[in-house]
Formats: sequence, C-alpha cells, structure tokens
Amino acid sequence: MELLRILLTHPAVDLVAVTSRAEAGKRLDQVFPRFSKARFGGLTFCQPDPDQIAATGAETAFLALPHGVAAEIAKALLDRGLRVIDLSADFRLNSAAVYEEYYNHPHPAEDLLAEAVYGLPEVRAGEIEKANLVASPGCYPTSIILPLLPLLEAKLIDPATIVANSMSGVSGAGRKADLSLLFCECNESARAYGVPKHRHLSEIEQELTIAAGEEVLISFIPHLIPVNSGIVTTTTAKLKEGVTPEQIGQALERTYAEAAFVRLLGRGKPADTKQVTRTNFIDIGWETDPRTNRVILMSAEDNLGKGAGGQAVQSFNIMHALDQKTGLETW
Amino acid sequence: MELLRILLTHPAVDLVAVTSRAEAGKRLDQVFPRFSKARFGGLTFCQPDPDQIAATGAETAFLALPHGVAAEIAKALLDRGLRVIDLSADFRLNSAAVYEEYYNHPHPAEDLLAEAVYGLPEVRAGEIEKANLVASPGCYPTSIILPLLPLLEAKLIDPATIVANSMSGVSGAGRKADLSLLFCECNESARAYGVPKHRHLSEIEQELTIAAGEEVLISFIPHLIPVNSGIVTTTTAKLKEGVTPEQIGQALERTYAEAAFVRLLGRGKPADTKQVTRTNFIDIGWETDPRTNRVILMSAEDNLGKGAGGQAVQSFNIMHALDQKTGLETW
Amino acid sequence: MELLRILLTHPAVDLVAVTSRAEAGKRLDQVFPRFSKARFGGLTFCQPDPDQIAATGAETAFLALPHGVAAEIAKALLDRGLRVIDLSADFRLNSAAVYEEYYNHPHPAEDLLAEAVYGLPEVRAGEIEKANLVASPGCYPTSIILPLLPLLEAKLIDPATIVANSMSGVSGAGRKADLSLLFCECNESARAYGVPKHRHLSEIEQELTIAAGEEVLISFIPHLIPVNSGIVTTTTAKLKEGVTPEQIGQALERTYAEAAFVRLLGRGKPADTKQVTRTNFIDIGWETDPRTNRVILMSAEDNLGKGAGGQAVQSFNIMHALDQKTGLETW
Amino acid sequence: MELLRILLTHPAVDLVAVTSRAEAGKRLDQVFPRFSKARFGGLTFCQPDPDQIAATGAETAFLALPHGVAAEIAKALLDRGLRVIDLSADFRLNSAAVYEEYYNHPHPAEDLLAEAVYGLPEVRAGEIEKANLVASPGCYPTSIILPLLPLLEAKLIDPATIVANSMSGVSGAGRKADLSLLFCECNESARAYGVPKHRHLSEIEQELTIAAGEEVLISFIPHLIPVNSGIVTTTTAKLKEGVTPEQIGQALERTYAEAAFVRLLGRGKPADTKQVTRTNFIDIGWETDPRTNRVILMSAEDNLGKGAGGQAVQSFNIMHALDQKTGLETW
Repeated sequence: MELLRILLTHPAVDLVAVTSRAEAGKRLDQVFPRFSKARFGGLTFCQPDPDQIAATGAETAFLALPHGVAAEIAKALLDRGLRVIDLSADFRLNSAAVYEEYYNHPHPAEDLLAEAVYGLPEVRAGEIEKANLVASPGCYPTSIILPLLPLLEAKLIDPATIVANSMSGVSGAGRKADLSLLFCECNESARAYGVPKHRHLSEIEQELTIAAGEEVLISFIPHLIPVNSGIVTTTTAKLKEGVTPEQIGQALERTYAEAAFVRLLGRGKPADTKQVTRTNFIDIGWETDPRTNRVILMSAEDNLGKGAGGQAVQSFNIMHALDQKTGLETW
Repeated sequence: MELLRILLTHPAVDLVAVTSRAEAGKRLDQVFPRFSKARFGGLTFCQPDPDQIAATGAETAFLALPHGVAAEIAKALLDRGLRVIDLSADFRLNSAAVYEEYYNHPHPAEDLLAEAVYGLPEVRAGEIEKANLVASPGCYPTSIILPLLPLLEAKLIDPATIVANSMSGVSGAGRKADLSLLFCECNESARAYGVPKHRHLSEIEQELTIAAGEEVLISFIPHLIPVNSGIVTTTTAKLKEGVTPEQIGQALERTYAEAAFVRLLGRGKPADTKQVTRTNFIDIGWETDPRTNRVILMSAEDNLGKGAGGQAVQSFNIMHALDQKTGLETW
Repeated sequence: MELLRILLTHPAVDLVAVTSRAEAGKRLDQVFPRFSKARFGGLTFCQPDPDQIAATGAETAFLALPHGVAAEIAKALLDRGLRVIDLSADFRLNSAAVYEEYYNHPHPAEDLLAEAVYGLPEVRAGEIEKANLVASPGCYPTSIILPLLPLLEAKLIDPATIVANSMSGVSGAGRKADLSLLFCECNESARAYGVPKHRHLSEIEQELTIAAGEEVLISFIPHLIPVNSGIVTTTTAKLKEGVTPEQIGQALERTYAEAAFVRLLGRGKPADTKQVTRTNFIDIGWETDPRTNRVILMSAEDNLGKGAGGQAVQSFNIMHALDQKTGLETW
Repeated sequence: MELLRILLTHPAVDLVAVTSRAEAGKRLDQVFPRFSKARFGGLTFCQPDPDQIAATGAETAFLALPHGVAAEIAKALLDRGLRVIDLSADFRLNSAAVYEEYYNHPHPAEDLLAEAVYGLPEVRAGEIEKANLVASPGCYPTSIILPLLPLLEAKLIDPATIVANSMSGVSGAGRKADLSLLFCECNESARAYGVPKHRHLSEIEQELTIAAGEEVLISFIPHLIPVNSGIVTTTTAKLKEGVTPEQIGQALERTYAEAAFVRLLGRGKPADTKQVTRTNFIDIGWETDPRTNRVILMSAEDNLGKGAGGQAVQSFNIMHALDQKTGLETW
C-alpha cells in the first residue's frame, strides 16, 4: 500500500496494472479508500497473470509477494521483457544454500540469483542502473547495514562484537488477520521476537561480510513496539584499538556525503522514528563509550519507506536514469 | 501515584500522611481523581515537614523525591525514629564518589550510605528485614540485574561482553510539563536517549560487580517507546567456553525457585510488557545463539511496579515481617 | 479475561471450572500468561459440558459466550441448580420479538425471559439478590442508562430529544482475528460504526422506557477509538420547560447517593476513561447549555469493568449477600 | 509545522521567510529535524517584524499565531501590500461583538472584519480569489459546516435539532508544555472538554445561520482522543417532515460534485480519520434513522490538513489562480 501511495504521485510513473488474487475485479480505491480521487485510483485489480500484465505495456514491475511466490512471477515477467523490482527475500541472497537454510525450502529460481542485484542504492547504484532484476532489501537489514558499512570498510570496529537491537512498528508484520497483531495485543506492549535467528540475518550478514572482507556473524534481536510504522535500531560494537571518535564521524561523513536519503545527525544524537515516517530517509546518529570502548550506532527509518516501498522506488529511479529523489521528496 | 495506588488497598497499611509542596491543602482524590471513593482518598496533602510527619504517628515513610532532596528528608525522618524506603537514587550507591560522578553534586548525606540497603528483595531479603533505610532500586537496574545475577554468580558469561538494550514507557520520565513528553512527541515515535552513560549505569554496575566478584562494565542503551508503562530489556553476553544452554536455565531456576515475583518463562520465550503491567512481577525468558555463542536474556516488568512502587512495597512487607506478596497480588 | 482477572483475587470465590471449546486441556496460565503464579492459574480449561460443570460443585456460573449460544447452556445449568450470571445479550430483553428484531434469530429460550433480571445493581439490587438468572447489561447501555435514569424518572428532560454518542476502546469488539481490529487499522483512527441501529439500542430503550414511563426512542452512535479499554459517552437532551441546572444535579445526587460504584463529578466536569479503567466505577459529569436548553451528560466507565466483568461480579456479590464492593475495590 | 510541510513541496511557493520570537536565529531544520535536506530547510527564523518580512519580497503571508496577536501583524502586513491568510480566529467572525463574547477581549482590528473572507473554498472560492485577507476556518468548524451546509440550504433538516459530537487528535491543542497534554495523560484516555460553549461555536453558527437563512444554534461537544491528528465528527438532526433519504444524498452530491477535496462516501458509510490524515480531504458519509427521523452525518478530516494548513494552502491556490489541488495531492 505504501509503495502504491508513492507511485500514485510519482511524476514519471504511469500505473498500468495492479494485481491481486483476493481483490481482482475491485477498484484500487475500493480496496484502499485512502486512494479515492487519486490519479489511478480507479484502476481495477487484475489476476497476477504474466501475459495479461505484459499486455498492459508495463515496462517495470514491483513485486510485493511472499517469498517463494515472488520468484516464479519474477521469472515470467523477466521472460516477457519487463524489468523487475522484487520486495520479497527471493533474490536478496547470493547463495541458494543460505536461502534454503533460512527460508526452509529450495530456492525457486536459482539461475536468477547471479543476475539479481541487492538493491541498496547507497552501495550499488551502478549495478542497479543496469539491472533487470533488483532485490530490494528488507527493512531491518537497511537499518543495520547502512550505519555499519562505513565502519567495517574502514576497519574501525571488531566484526565479532556486533549486536543490533531493532524496534519495529506493527506494519512490519504485514496486514493479516492474526491474533497477535490485534490492537489490544500490540498496544501497551513491547516484546522481542524471532530470536536468535531472524530470517533477515542472512542478508545482513551477507552484506556486512562483503563490506568487511571477512566473515561477519552478528546478534540481531528484533522487537515489536506499538507504532504503525518506523524502525529504530541501536547497534553496538567494540572499536578496534586506537580508533578515535573522530574517525567514526569521518567514515560516516565520507561514505554518505552524496547520499540523497541518508541524514547524518552527528555525534551524541539519537535517531527518532517520528522524523522519518512517510519519507525515504534513514537518520543515523552515533556515540562512543570510552568506558567500554564501544561505538553506539542509532538509526531510524520508515520500515515501509526506506525499509521497503521508498527504497524500491529509489532503485526504480536509478534504473530509469531519473534523479534518485524523483517522487520521494516528502517531509 | 502508582505507589499510592498500591498502598490504598494494602491490608496492613494505614496511610496517615501524604506530602507535597505543590499540592499541600488539597485532598488526595482532588489531585488524583482516580482515587475518589478510595479508603484514604479524603486524606489532605501536607507540607513535607519532618516534625509534622512524625506527629502523625507514621512508622514508615516512602520517599518519591528527586535525588539530592530525598537524602535530607530521609535523614530527618530517621532521626525521628521512622524507617525509610527511598525510591530516589540517593542511597543506592555504596560510594559517594561514584554518586558525585553520576549525579553531579556531592552526596548530601554520606554518613548514611553504609547503613542503607539496596532493596532488591530477591537478593537481600535478610538485610532489608532489619534495615531502617532501604534504597529501592531503579526501574532499568531491576530489569537488567535480575536476569544477569544468576549467570554472573555461576560464572557462565563473560562480564566484559554485556550489552543491555531497554525500552521504557513514557511514565519512566516522570510527570512534568516538558515538550519532549507531549503526546504528539512520543506517540508514533521510538528513540534512544541517555547514551552512553545513563545515571542508572552506576547502580547496575555496582550490583553486577558484587555478583561477579570482579569489576563489570556494561553498555546500556535506554529507549523511549509509546506505552504508558512497562520496560522490556534485552541483554546479550558471550557464554564462557563450554557453557551449555541447560546451564543457563538451571542457574535461573536455582536462583529464583522461591522468588514470589520472578516468573521464568523458559527457553525461547520472549517477555512482553503487557503481561506484567500493574503487577509486581518481572518475567524473564532467554535463548542462546550457537552461531555467536551469546546468551539473550529478555525481561519485562512494569517500570512503576517491580521497577518502583511495587518493589518498594515488597521491601516494606519484608521490613514488617509480612508475606512478601501482601497487597501485591494483582493480575 | 477481565472477569477472570477479578475472580482470581475475589476473597469469596473458589474458581472450580473454566470452560472453552478451543482451549480445553490447557491451563489457565498457558492461555493467559498474565495469570501465571495466580491462585487458580493452574486450573485446566474443560469443555463446556453442563454435567461436568455441575460435577465440580460450582454454585454460580458466569457466561461469556456469543448470544444464542449462551441461552442454551444457561438453561442447562439452571436445570442443574446453578445460578447463572450471563454476560451475553440473551436474557437482557423482556420481549422475544424485540430480541429477534435485533439479533436476527428466534430467542433460544423464551420461557426464561420472565425469570431473568436485567442486572443493573443501581436499579434492581433487590431483584438481583433473589435471581437465579441475571442478564448482565452491555457496556454501552450501562454508560447511557445510568446518567439518564434519574432525569427521566424526575421528568426533567424530553425523551424524544435524546442523542447518545459513545467512544469505545477496541476490546469492546472481542478478541477475534479480524482485519478491522488489527493494530494498524485501529491505531491513529477514529470512526463511527453500527449506525443507525446498533444492537444495544434494544436494551437501552427498554430500560429508558421503564424509567420514563413512556416509550423512549433515542439516537445512539458508537465510535471506535484507539484505546484498549474504556467507554466515554456524551448524551444530550432538551430540558423540559422551566427545569433548572440545580434540578439536574439534585436528581443525580439523590439517585446515586448510596451507589458504591457511581462517582458524580459534578457540574461542568467531563468524565475521562483514564480515571476508571480497571475499576468498577462509572464517573458521571454534566452541564447545561442555556443557549440550546440542553443538558449534556458525560459518563466514563471501563467497558470490561463496569461495562462487563466488574458489573457481573457486583451482581454476584449481591446474589450472595456480600458487600457490593467485595473484590472490586481497585484503583 | 504541517503548513510548512506542505509549503516545502508546493511547486508555486518560494518560502522567503519564517518567523518566530522563540526560535529566531535558528534554522528551520534545527527546530524541525524532520525538514532536514528539504528545500528551504536551511532558512533561518527571523523575528516577526513586518518591515523585515516585507523586505524579503514576500507577497503572501500565512499567520499561525494566537488570536489577538494575529490581527495586529495582519494589519501591518496588509499595510505593506502583502496578502494575508490567517489561521487564527481573529477574522473569522463578522461581528466584533460576537468575537468579544467568545474570546473575552475587544476585537483588535475591527475595521478589517468587513474585508476579511471566511476561507471555506467549497463555499466562497469567488471571494477568496479576490481577497487580501482570508480567515482560514477552524478544524472543528470545517468538519461540522461542510456536511450540514447542503442540508440546511435545501431545508431538509430542522436547524433547532442539530447536535455535533467531535473527536480530535491531540495536535489540535497545539504544541505547548502542558501537563494535560503529556503522553501519559492522553494515551488510553478519552474525554469531552470545552462544554457547553467552545469558542469554535461562534464561527460554526455564523456559517450555518447564513446557509439556513435563519438563526441556527447547535450543541457542539468536542472530545480529545489519543491520536496525533484527525477529527471525526458525528452530527445528528431531525429531518423535516416528508424528507426522504434520497434527498439527503442528492443534496450532498449536488453541492460537492465539483469539490476537489470533498469525498462523499455515500449512505451508511462511516468516515474514518485514518483515510484522511496528511491529506486535504474531508470524507463525508451519512445515514438516516427512520425510528427517530434523524439524519446522521459522519465526517473525517485531518485537523492539521483540511482543518488548518491544507485548507489555508487551498485558499492560497485560489488566490493565485492556481489549480486548487496544487501542492495538495498527497495520499
């Protein structure tokens, strides 16, 4: 829904098809009353049939489907000449074996893995530009990878000491009729879940390993908190010997000097989800603790924005040689 | 207010005085309409004058005052023969120097520090029973110390690797007219604060150091989340070599077998604040991660209950040879 | 769940059976982790078999079942000598025809209607005391009937002009896996529903008609707001000619002078749900508007307390010659 | 802040000055971190000095000031040739006497009242276009007036029977350090306030009286509910004899057929704040109740959008011969 919300006002997008098995035949603004009077609000959901989609003249497809399901339709659409931006986990991992370990079924389209690009625009804009298949990163991974990357690349921290604690809004769980997601179950509640091996660990560690140039294993503990959207992540790690606080700040500044959607808050400045909701920004603050010699990285993003729909559109812009910010400049 | 709420229905309590500079002259149920029709709801706030308080025949005083202020009145009340349960930080630390380091002013009653008992009933019931001055622990410390104690005492974890991330409801900040505590500033928001050296670190490390028998320094990152009350804490630490998951469970079970207000959830079971709000319970779950060889401790308590008012009443019960559960059995 | 929460600490209650088709075989504290370490927390859910229930020695049964289902088991339990307090709508209406009009099926036990007592303790304590079958009122009806009764009985308002707007917490909809009750659907949302003829209208108008001595039809518009529990109701009506504000206050004071759970806030004082949650109180404030000659009645209650479980226990107390407040004095 | 948020992305706006006594000298994105990286985010707050403002070349000024204060600066800016859109109450009333009755001080610029246009674009687009001084309506008035206008103009309802109940998010109270607006005071709370004569009644009745062609006095009861933004209003009134439900629907359809920001939901469809937050839409649903012969009007808007900043920009667009939707098409 958030992806659609962005596309509805994107100046370079003609929305030609929306698909849904459950809602086929209904108008977009019937399923999502918020979209009444919107451009394309009158579009009718069709079945996710690849031929029918291709027949609309669609050039690029966004997939917001469960893992396993996404791969099949991605393949079919690629075969028909569309470029695909997949928001599921199906093409995020380089290794089919790791995929099977974390998702408990064989990879449904292993031959496409080599072609897929992990769509983190701050890291791989060049590859995204040419890609036909972009695997848009998960919400937790984005909030953890972006603050850590500069420090791992610059060898400022000990990769074996990384601990990431994330707090996510309830929308991260999707919109499904599940007792544990009821208002009265989530409101006035906070709890960890998915320990010790949340599925997102696989892509987090893949990307951190690439950045560090050595295998990285981390502890990652997600929590559910009673907000609609937003993720705040606090990551700690030991500084390597002799590393100064200034080096932390410099590494972040250097890496993200040109990044349109990374806002560096500076030293001692916590990130707050309320500053990023309904935007494509990730805010990053940091501090060091001389007592324990750890760095504390604090990031905030909208799990539905930079953590999902916004980031996918950012890749879309890059793929189409548009300014990365096109359609994403909201505050 | 939460302490009063408990005392209003405590079968062994005669509430003889409530004090407040700001509200002196008003009735309890005028200041707190919730307490209308309560026993003692008609009691009138008086000035916090020690002689006046002593004249009411009060035998025990609860102090819910800012640090610095609490010490003075505690001394005056002790001199007049009352026993004192102080909910401020003034008597929690054994060292006046550490107090000054964390609270930025000299300790106001250094001579009382030796006499004061850190009022964690699960650890020091015997001392609390005889104490005239109990320093009731802070909300974060309770949620961090109780899960860690058994593991440190049994030498199962490496003290240098402890990282605690806590999420607290907004009531933890007190009831003061502060822009950052407004509904619209806190709702739909999550953020870290107080990094890297929150004041509560001082008592946390004091108690962990005692338990470990060696100096313990930890990373502690508190977060503010949009719930009225409740703290959930996730603590990670490296297991010592050869430690098995079973040993973790056994250490917790052994230590808290007889604890009235510790509920062990078992392995793989996250704690949820919604199960403990308005109770004096702390729920503790745990998991180990063989990939990183870390233990993950997950605790939940009501920051106003086991983290403040409830715990103070638990000490009160012990001091008066009552069942620890008296007046605290609510669900 | 809220009813169980009250019964767990009620000094005159031995909980001998809890029934559930879905949870049969599980322990109470497994289904509701909040009840761990509670007296009776280890009780096991059994099937709702009347013989099995009677065999436990149960003397009184509380029914929290869907309408239609409740009547059958009520009958079976009454036949076995139990007294029944039914929290469903099955026995609230005197007329089987009105029941069928509002609940869309014939009344399942019409012969019991004459025997059932509408369990509003402030109105029918005498009948409740002797009743074998008490129909505990709905949440909205309680919040609307109690403020209006004194004014209708004293003929101070025009019954044809009554408009009641209620705002209810999400728990009022029950705990069912329904998309519209998800956190993200309810949070940051407010909406009317059930217009123009919510089922509760039937019992509201029945009771108002009795009080007024003439047929009363009202407009009632319920709203869903993002709180866990609590109902606030604002009711307006035209004053009869010559009625003074003082008469309004006097009628309320006179009627509820001895009522244990009605708290009159006085003129110009709005009621706030946060003062009554987790209590059995209903708070009532009022104001008159000389410009429009209307009275404005403002009431607040916990929809799960005075609006359901608490009120049922209040009737239980009366039925067993206990002080009405037994087990209900919480703040 | 919401007005600024809209202006930051408005394609026809050059933001040349922002003023604030308290924040003068700070950058916009320092005061509002959300606006970091925004166009104009680096603008510095200056003192609200009319000459200094005029010197920036500003052609139109938006005033978001307390009543009483707004009038003075409006006058000064008008004198310097700026057009003014005032979001305060200072120019909403045609009568200085009514202003004094409701705001408790003499009108500070009575001579400007005749010139000011009550800026409800659905009613007075023609006047707004030519106006130099637009008084942008209050949040409650917009939500009450728009649904009622067509019915009053078509003489379908009895004006003496109108009762409006509104529920507003906490942002409606402004951003001030006030105990009653703290998170813990508002969360899990719902309450009426401002009865029986909220200040907004004055403009509501002024506009309804104009529409009805006879004096209209209504009952209006605002409530505070725990959402950041959004107002939902339920208005009831007696239908005139012989009026059919179809006539209600037709009157609404006829009046708002061309209205860019009114979304008619149709019969039996409640409006929900979550469909309108952060938009300039007002959603209107309705139902009739044959039992009481009343119509029930249900409207929802963002109190900060259509109820304040969005509506002001809508008037701005009209004043500058832009499409009304310019800069306001967000979903």
